[in-house]
Amino acid sequence: MSVVDRDFNEETATEIVLGRNAACTSPRLKQIMEVLVPHLHAVVRELELTSAEWMAAIEFLTATGQISSDRRQEFILLSDTLGVSMLVDAINNRKTQDVTPSTVLGPFHVDGAPRMAMGENISKDGRGEPLFVSGRVLDENGEPLQGAVLDVWQTSEDGFYDTQDPRQPDMNLRGVFRTGSDGRFWFRTIVPASYPIPNDGPVGRMLKALARHPMRPAHIHFIVTAAGFDSLATHVFLADDPYLQSDAVFGVKDALIREVEISQDSDRAAAFGTQAPFKSLDIDIRLQHEEVGHIRGSRAGFAEGKTS
Amino acid sequence: MSVVDRDFNEETATEIVLGRNAACTSPRLKQIMEVLVPHLHAVVRELELTSAEWMAAIEFLTATGQISSDRRQEFILLSDTLGVSMLVDAINNRKTQDVTPSTVLGPFHVDGAPRMAMGENISKDGRGEPLFVSGRVLDENGEPLQGAVLDVWQTSEDGFYDTQDPRQPDMNLRGVFRTGSDGRFWFRTIVPASYPIPNDGPVGRMLKALARHPMRPAHIHFIVTAAGFDSLATHVFLADDPYLQSDAVFGVKDALIREVEISQDSDRAAAFGTQAPFKSLDIDIRLQHEEVGHIRGSRAGFAEGKTS
Repeated sequence: MSVVDRDFNEETATEIVLGRNAACTSPRLKQIMEVLVPHLHAVVRELELTSAEWMAAIEFLTATGQISSDRRQEFILLSDTLGVSMLVDAINNRKTQDVTPSTVLGPFHVDGAPRMAMGENISKDGRGEPLFVSGRVLDENGEPLQGAVLDVWQTSEDGFYDTQDPRQPDMNLRGVFRTGSDGRFWFRTIVPASYPIPNDGPVGRMLKALARHPMRPAHIHFIVTAAGFDSLATHVFLADDPYLQSDAVFGVKDALIREVEISQDSDRAAAFGTQAPFKSLDIDIRLQHEEVGHIRGSRAGFAEGKTS
Repeated sequence: MSVVDRDFNEETATEIVLGRNAACTSPRLKQIMEVLVPHLHAVVRELELTSAEWMAAIEFLTATGQISSDRRQEFILLSDTLGVSMLVDAINNRKTQDVTPSTVLGPFHVDGAPRMAMGENISKDGRGEPLFVSGRVLDENGEPLQGAVLDVWQTSEDGFYDTQDPRQPDMNLRGVFRTGSDGRFWFRTIVPASYPIPNDGPVGRMLKALARHPMRPAHIHFIVTAAGFDSLATHVFLADDPYLQSDAVFGVKDALIREVEISQDSDRAAAFGTQAPFKSLDIDIRLQHEEVGHIRGSRAGFAEGKTS
């Protein structure tokens, strides 16, 4: 280094900080710092950040960590609301046009949802408007995939996941299904609601200061896995939701929006154990064959870990 | 916006996220987001951050918040070790060549240190090698400032602040002094030690992964205030410390380094209540006249607040 550490000033700061990593043995970590530190310093320089603003940032980040718990992940929420999660998702899921796009996993997935038989009802308390969800899991060419596993979860009719709401039974509105030989799946549930992301913490205060609403449009989450295919974390969104254009976490993609149909089909109603008319939603999910070194499903890799 | 939110992709992400702030009524907050979000997204894009790396970042930030407490501020430590704190300090303390430079306040300042008479000993337990610290507080032109207040604090001989070390008496090695009519101050203390920043948390793990040591060179902290002058948060560093070239928080400036002198001056020894030879250190501190809108001393404004 030509610059010695004691010459630290506005011009030399970045070079000096990076110079300290000379002995780092991880090329990737070194590269991360070589990208992160210049951008971090550029933020401070371009804003001419005041000491008070710096302190406010320290306090904001500290509060974001401290409100996080087994049941709440405020840093994921921060990443989500700044579009970082969806950007990571986009970069890690570059794909052909022929497969179902991924979207954010969100912080509400829980491991160990009950395995259910085809057609079972994931609503344990019966509250809400009945909905029949059906579809197929296919490969890129539209060939049905037998034995694909769908892990599904959603909110109650008033917009809460079971983990947020002590009134709901444990594992309410969660279930794991497996496709048959025709690639088909179907299950019973209720119409999910649009809902605010947790907004009583630092991220909620940030959104309020930015005059942004905290709402997500109604959706059902899926993690779909099949042997030989990239796993896929995605949602299906309900058409006509007022928040489809302004999802607080930027998760909506056109290819994931489906109409809720009101069906008059009595035969299908009978097969579903109900009577016409009934509400239903249909989505085919196309998976992509696994490639070595290709990661698919932005957070699917963490689905068994700490994001739950 | 020409881009609709449902077209969120690698190219449109930043424009869409910023478009959400259209109704924000704080021009500064809007500006902060307009600088922060593009840099944050650029980090993700340039690194092609993987989902696993993203999750590691979420977990790192969460742990950094969660280890913080009334006694420990790990986000300040992170800011310090990435050179952000010193950069904020540099930007907020652009100054003439004639005054004493500021440096990081650090997380170990405590409010309410005892006011002491000139010459008192801030060491309450007598452990360590005696040191006499003296100097003057001056203005830009070298005119002495009467009634300037010096809030000083330092580590024990083994490198711990009282707040980190249950063996030390409360308020050990802390004191508040006021200059006389000649601008002079002096007090008794012990020789401070170089020490590691707290390195049993996320920041310590980061430094280890980067093959960086966590050491700070030995120093005494000062916050100096005088009516009509910008307050100054600074250190005096002891020359010949092995860590002067590689302070973990980048706080060293040449103008703040002083030799520890071994004095044979019997008269002065007598004035100090000891016998020659004795160790001493002398530093004159030059303050800058207050200007409206000019903030000096990177964290002095928070010194009475939550950084303590």
